[in-house]
Amino acid sequence: MSTVQAPRNPESDPRVKAVFDDIRATRNTEFINQLWRYLAFDATLLEQTWAEVKRVMATPSALDPLTKELVYITASVINGCSYCVHSHTAAATAKGMTPQQHAELLSIVALASKTNQLATALQVPLDPEFDRG
Amino acid sequence: MSTVQAPRNPESDPRVKAVFDDIRATRNTEFINQLWRYLAFDATLLEQTWAEVKRVMATPSALDPLTKELVYITASVINGCSYCVHSHTAAATAKGMTPQQHAELLSIVALASKTNQLATALQVPLDPEFDRG
Amino acid sequence: MSTVQAPRNPESDPRVKAVFDDIRATRNTEFINQLWRYLAFDATLLEQTWAEVKRVMATPSALDPLTKELVYITASVINGCSYCVHSHTAAATAKGMTPQQHAELLSIVALASKTNQLATALQVPLDPEFDRG
Amino acid sequence: MSTVQAPRNPESDPRVKAVFDDIRATRNTEFINQLWRYLAFDATLLEQTWAEVKRVMATPSALDPLTKELVYITASVINGCSYCVHSHTAAATAKGMTPQQHAELLSIVALASKTNQLATALQVPLDPEFDRG
Amino acid sequence: MSTVQAPRNPESDPRVKAVFDDIRATRNTEFINQLWRYLAFDATLLEQTWAEVKRVMATPSALDPLTKELVYITASVINGCSYCVHSHTAAATAKGMTPQQHAELLSIVALASKTNQLATALQVPLDPEFDRG
Amino acid sequence: MSTVQAPRNPESDPRVKAVFDDIRATRNTEFINQLWRYLAFDATLLEQTWAEVKRVMATPSALDPLTKELVYITASVINGCSYCVHSHTAAATAKGMTPQQHAELLSIVALASKTNQLATALQVPLDPEFDRG
Repeated sequence: MSTVQAPRNPESDPRVKAVFDDIRATRNTEFINQLWRYLAFDATLLEQTWAEVKRVMATPSALDPLTKELVYITASVINGCSYCVHSHTAAATAKGMTPQQHAELLSIVALASKTNQLATALQVPLDPEFDRG
Repeated sequence: MSTVQAPRNPESDPRVKAVFDDIRATRNTEFINQLWRYLAFDATLLEQTWAEVKRVMATPSALDPLTKELVYITASVINGCSYCVHSHTAAATAKGMTPQQHAELLSIVALASKTNQLATALQVPLDPEFDRG
Repeated sequence: MSTVQAPRNPESDPRVKAVFDDIRATRNTEFINQLWRYLAFDATLLEQTWAEVKRVMATPSALDPLTKELVYITASVINGCSYCVHSHTAAATAKGMTPQQHAELLSIVALASKTNQLATALQVPLDPEFDRG
Repeated sequence: MSTVQAPRNPESDPRVKAVFDDIRATRNTEFINQLWRYLAFDATLLEQTWAEVKRVMATPSALDPLTKELVYITASVINGCSYCVHSHTAAATAKGMTPQQHAELLSIVALASKTNQLATALQVPLDPEFDRG
Repeated sequence: MSTVQAPRNPESDPRVKAVFDDIRATRNTEFINQLWRYLAFDATLLEQTWAEVKRVMATPSALDPLTKELVYITASVINGCSYCVHSHTAAATAKGMTPQQHAELLSIVALASKTNQLATALQVPLDPEFDRG
Repeated sequence: MSTVQAPRNPESDPRVKAVFDDIRATRNTEFINQLWRYLAFDATLLEQTWAEVKRVMATPSALDPLTKELVYITASVINGCSYCVHSHTAAATAKGMTPQQHAELLSIVALASKTNQLATALQVPLDPEFDRG
């Protein structure tokens, strides 16, 4: 069940086809996952979202590809996005995440959520040593 | 302003002193940040929280120390813990995070929050390819 | 799967029947969606929740009906309520939301979540110009 | 207290100056709020964030400018971004939000958060009538 | 810094005065905390919010007053409302919460947040035994 | 659909068997719910998570068992963990939660979420009376 109807023949729209072609080329796979098929209900939203995902996630940069996916999984878990937890766990696995690294990631996310709530519950005042501004 | 009173002389309690000594030894610094000073209102809570932080964050493991801090910052941002965003950004900087890596981390957290909300708003159905179970 | 059992014959309870009748009259439809059928496990909770929904959402006021639904969808997305995203997207569509407006709403929700997390990650201090108090 | 240091003379960097000039021209004011001054620690992040804010919020479109700000405030409240709640409430006021509309917005955000949590607590199953996909 | 201006002489408005009088009588104290002073910017919002707080929190019912406050603190922590964490921790203390109970409450909130994120990260399927519907 | 594969014969691993045996003994039931079967993908994560759940939730303490479950349900609802809402509502029911107490719990969670968002939207300043630190 979704809140929009994914287009039946999305690639009949040349703007959608161009994005899908770029996804296939960038990821070197024929697989287009459902997020893109549903975003295709609005070509502009599809184009802009893919452009940003490609720039941030698929361009060599100061963080390695696996680290980026670990950060993405973390955000997805805390934001409670079931779809995104699935898709980025699959992406991290494809980029080499081992079961041991997965378990360790979960330990950190769990611990962080624990101490985040403790600090919020205590309303701990900031240490002046943390100031950067 | 906090919701508990941090003990005035926390190390007069030998259980608190033992934890503070271990923090100093583990981190190789005299600095004990406020989270621990406030958790000291309950020695058991202090001991258990530090034991877990030490085990997960200060023990060599399958993820390197900087990656762990990037994950911790991410969780802290999305959980909205101001104290934790400050303390773990400081910790990541101490472990070598460059301004460029910091900016890139923020780009990923921002992008993830964006696509997390898009997937939730669209209620995108799961691709069978993502199933591991 | 739910955490309470929806009553089998909810309208055998006159308090529930009165609420359901008012929902049908207010919305001019025979359709009673599941939220109300499950809230019927406690007549008081049902009555109070419906009274507030009717007062806030179904009474002419300073904001037009479609704007109200756009705000409701936004809250539902960020709160991560799948049921509510579905029901209020359907309500907004019934009140005239076009696909273009829907796509634009998603763009704003996505952008806001992005800049919300950036401001939290940076811990940007408040501009004195924003003070109203 | 912030987690990065805002540049002392941000406009000595021509990329930052170009963004600040565009903010002033687009908003027709000399005021550059702190979010942009802190994002200036990384010119690329600044450029990309402003480009998206300008495109989504400052371009005539299918939703009127005040409605857009009401949606932005809503997301900022639920995401718990204090800075953003301040800045977008100021922006909405500048675009004509009356105190009555403000109070009504708060009523909707409060009600939505209430029913969002009720639906989540009950785990209400979806009505087939809501399916669009 | 707030987003509305609290009225300077709130009780010059008889509707506000009636609510403030009822708060004082119900709580048996002269102290009116800031939430009510700011909600007074809109008499209707003030009246409706107080009526619900009084009905849910200040009326004898199936849960004892301290348990209700523990639940309220928990929601406030996870929703990230600093003001509410402060006000409801004070309320729980006034209703007899001991430091030991406070520490235990924090342990549960911390543990729940941990296992909540683990279950979300794993996307654990529901046990049929949990179905009530 | 899950993000890890639950082991087919989890109790062939003696560390997993020891945890499962302890769950059965502590809870006095043969039923091992899915969270533990999936956490078994990593024996260390399983052992540590169960040890903490047992210590916090299954040991006589300053809060009674039902109150603890009400707090756990509250955190689970606000954190948006569908699995956890189900499992802890079942646990609370097993510990004697009546339908009336359940409805009242939901009223408090709903009200708290409402006033949490109102206080955040108004950015109400703290009363000095709330300071403990």
